[in-house]
Amino acid sequence: MKRKIDKISDAALNRFSVYHRALNGLEREGIKVISSEGLASCLGGTATGQNRYSGAQVRKDLSYVGALGAAGKGYVVNALRDTLAHLLGIDRIWNVALIGAGKLGSALFSYPGFRASGFHISAVLDADAQIIGHDWHGVVVTDVAEIQNVIQQKKIKIAILTLPAEACQGMVDTLVACGICAILNFAPARLVVPAGVELRNADFTGELACLSYSLTNLSAEV
Amino acid sequence: MKRKIDKISDAALNRFSVYHRALNGLEREGIKVISSEGLASCLGGTATGQNRYSGAQVRKDLSYVGALGAAGKGYVVNALRDTLAHLLGIDRIWNVALIGAGKLGSALFSYPGFRASGFHISAVLDADAQIIGHDWHGVVVTDVAEIQNVIQQKKIKIAILTLPAEACQGMVDTLVACGICAILNFAPARLVVPAGVELRNADFTGELACLSYSLTNLSAEV
Repeated sequence: MKRKIDKISDAALNRFSVYHRALNGLEREGIKVISSEGLASCLGGTATGQNRYSGAQVRKDLSYVGALGAAGKGYVVNALRDTLAHLLGIDRIWNVALIGAGKLGSALFSYPGFRASGFHISAVLDADAQIIGHDWHGVVVTDVAEIQNVIQQKKIKIAILTLPAEACQGMVDTLVACGICAILNFAPARLVVPAGVELRNADFTGELACLSYSLTNLSAEV
Repeated sequence: MKRKIDKISDAALNRFSVYHRALNGLEREGIKVISSEGLASCLGGTATGQNRYSGAQVRKDLSYVGALGAAGKGYVVNALRDTLAHLLGIDRIWNVALIGAGKLGSALFSYPGFRASGFHISAVLDADAQIIGHDWHGVVVTDVAEIQNVIQQKKIKIAILTLPAEACQGMVDTLVACGICAILNFAPARLVVPAGVELRNADFTGELACLSYSLTNLSAEV
């Protein structure tokens, strides 16, 4: 069901996803209630107490979703986790198609975070006859020629793309024609999707550029 | 050399990295001058003209770094590319150590974007005797027991970590002791670094959560 709320920034959505995962971990550890400072300290930081996230940032973000910790106690871990899961649309299972069964595709298939957040890679498609038919923990790599049948039979709306850059736009057009609504692309390619289809580009180089910026501008001389 | 400038947000740094890569592509295509709208349209978008980036956003970002396009003409492609490279600290070669030569490490080693932005993976380290000694396009996979020698000999300051979550903190401590100043971590692990060391976590699940948020809240019913 479509909900009527403001569009939240990507940066905030990423933080909500990080909080959700941390709350899952806290629940597994048997922790029932957590303060904003406690949650911030779960999210990594420096040994000298410089956290990547501050308690104030956590409080501000969580007040946006209407979560108000009880004064002097904190947030109820499983309730807050469920609120965030509902907001992010991960309070359900999403079947995901992985297009490209090469090294990166294989690594992503094994990535432990996806399943824990409700993303199940239930189809793997490739054009390589050497790989087609292989069983990946119960998911058989299928000929990409079968893509329309697979996506429609498994009611898949999200695809992860790990093809060479030059093959991506053609595959995006095919995916859209098959009814895919959201694509996470890992190739450094300039891609176009029609209105109503969401495309995100995972960008490893940007992460390294943030590090080189810090080393050059903010750290001691290197 | 340490430069005295304000800290720029991660989101802005990521956009600068995207612009830098697009400008590299334009230069390869022989384009000498580009307008802000032209640059925005290079960055992907929808077929109906809904760009992920607007000309106004590009102009605002670039004015921050002092780049002002000539009225009615635009920005000089190679000069702007060099300005952004200098800002991001990628107007040089960074030797990078890859820790973990598994599927994800192997995929990242082959990732075409790194070398194009000056990040050279010049050392690959792993503990697996089956992999140690393999030649990866001129880089020999080295026993992780040799890590201190390798990092100091090759003057490496940046490491990419693709280990299982439970092995990461121990390796981070080792890397810091060896003089590494910046770490890009791919495992879903909660890591702590001392002050002065930069840590970034590449988070695939967050990207998918942004997509599921859009599908749930902003798109037609799915």
